[in-house]
Amino acid sequence: MTVTLERLMLQLQVDQLNAAYVATLDERRYGDWPAFFVEDARYKVQARENFDRGLPLALIALESRGMMKDRVIGVTQTIFHGPYYMRHVVTPAQVVDDGDGPIRAQSHYAVFRTRPGGLSEVYNVGRYVDEIVRTSDGLKFASRVCVYDSELVLNSLIYPI
Amino acid sequence: MTVTLERLMLQLQVDQLNAAYVATLDERRYGDWPAFFVEDARYKVQARENFDRGLPLALIALESRGMMKDRVIGVTQTIFHGPYYMRHVVTPAQVVDDGDGPIRAQSHYAVFRTRPGGLSEVYNVGRYVDEIVRTSDGLKFASRVCVYDSELVLNSLIYPI
Amino acid sequence: MTVTLERLMLQLQVDQLNAAYVATLDERRYGDWPAFFVEDARYKVQARENFDRGLPLALIALESRGMMKDRVIGVTQTIFHGPYYMRHVVTPAQVVDDGDGPIRAQSHYAVFRTRPGGLSEVYNVGRYVDEIVRTSDGLKFASRVCVYDSELVLNSLIYPI
Repeated sequence: MTVTLERLMLQLQVDQLNAAYVATLDERRYGDWPAFFVEDARYKVQARENFDRGLPLALIALESRGMMKDRVIGVTQTIFHGPYYMRHVVTPAQVVDDGDGPIRAQSHYAVFRTRPGGLSEVYNVGRYVDEIVRTSDGLKFASRVCVYDSELVLNSLIYPI
Repeated sequence: MTVTLERLMLQLQVDQLNAAYVATLDERRYGDWPAFFVEDARYKVQARENFDRGLPLALIALESRGMMKDRVIGVTQTIFHGPYYMRHVVTPAQVVDDGDGPIRAQSHYAVFRTRPGGLSEVYNVGRYVDEIVRTSDGLKFASRVCVYDSELVLNSLIYPI
Repeated sequence: MTVTLERLMLQLQVDQLNAAYVATLDERRYGDWPAFFVEDARYKVQARENFDRGLPLALIALESRGMMKDRVIGVTQTIFHGPYYMRHVVTPAQVVDDGDGPIRAQSHYAVFRTRPGGLSEVYNVGRYVDEIVRTSDGLKFASRVCVYDSELVLNSLIYPI
């Protein structure tokens, strides 16, 4: 791998994007979450079986920032559910920028859930499969697919991953 | 985000500081732990509810390197407890250095505990909220607050996080 | 720590090597796994007690790429076992390159296992202790020891870590 200064800078920007993204979710600033995406971005939470087979079935599938804002309103104001804390641990991203189309990135994540008075537990593990674009406001996701390993627990998945 | 060479170097230094810190703890070199801090540094392990509300209550609150050394002696020589291994997994840090005051950094962590003959289990998850200063001996923590998500298990927290 | 541009580039290369390595395993491309090593590389999966005491006993000990290829065949074609997904979360590496001998690196990892229809669970946590060399085909492992914290569960460890 040839490493240029430009490549180093891109890596830092992608890893900082991921760090800011997960901090926003874990600190429950859900209203700030759609701003990580471009206007017509896609966001999916999908089991790896379906992802690997190219099937459309997904737990969450949003196709614009508007849909993300609706989702946030639903999560914070409408849905009745037991509250829980999330904690994301995300790895340094694999980044490919061939100069043709969006930057492609992938990183592994583990999300831990803590319910009030409860122990922290493994909640959702998988990988982010991303398409990222440069905007005047910095890097944004054009597409983020959260490809998770387990089918279970997720019927109670409320917040974005 | 504008990325300079200086910013790249700072990121590497902060991430290496975190990597060295967790390796020291996980390899049980507790005597080396206070050296990650400046003389009058603060170290706290605090539940996120208390942190978010600005409450002082904390599980551990040390206000100098001397207190840290006392803690290490207590942990390694005095306290009777069941031994366990720790394993920290820590993310690339979010770093802000506005040139005015200490460098501010934040990273997410998961700590796994393994007791003799037992399975590894999720022990403590949360984030490090740090103030870091440059010294002639490299970067040191002026303040590290370990803000954890769960209130449970922690009555048996013996070693620093 | 003095940070040079060369040091920044090395860090990126090592972290990308780790990212590609764990992606290969987690995406079940086991046939690509031996290519992360040089021909006469060593690969070990060893409990920390044995590692710390310098004892040879190890769960897996392979001493060439040929042995790794045999292992892959065994894993994918011969051994009867319940299938499971792995998910590795690995930290930015500590890297030391003193210009004399191989690059030495260490990183912490957590591996989560998901069995069909089951929850994701903590499977194996520990650290990678690595010796890495530069080749015409990029960085390769001359030695990777996976030093894990727990003795349990591992009788069912099938895939490389």
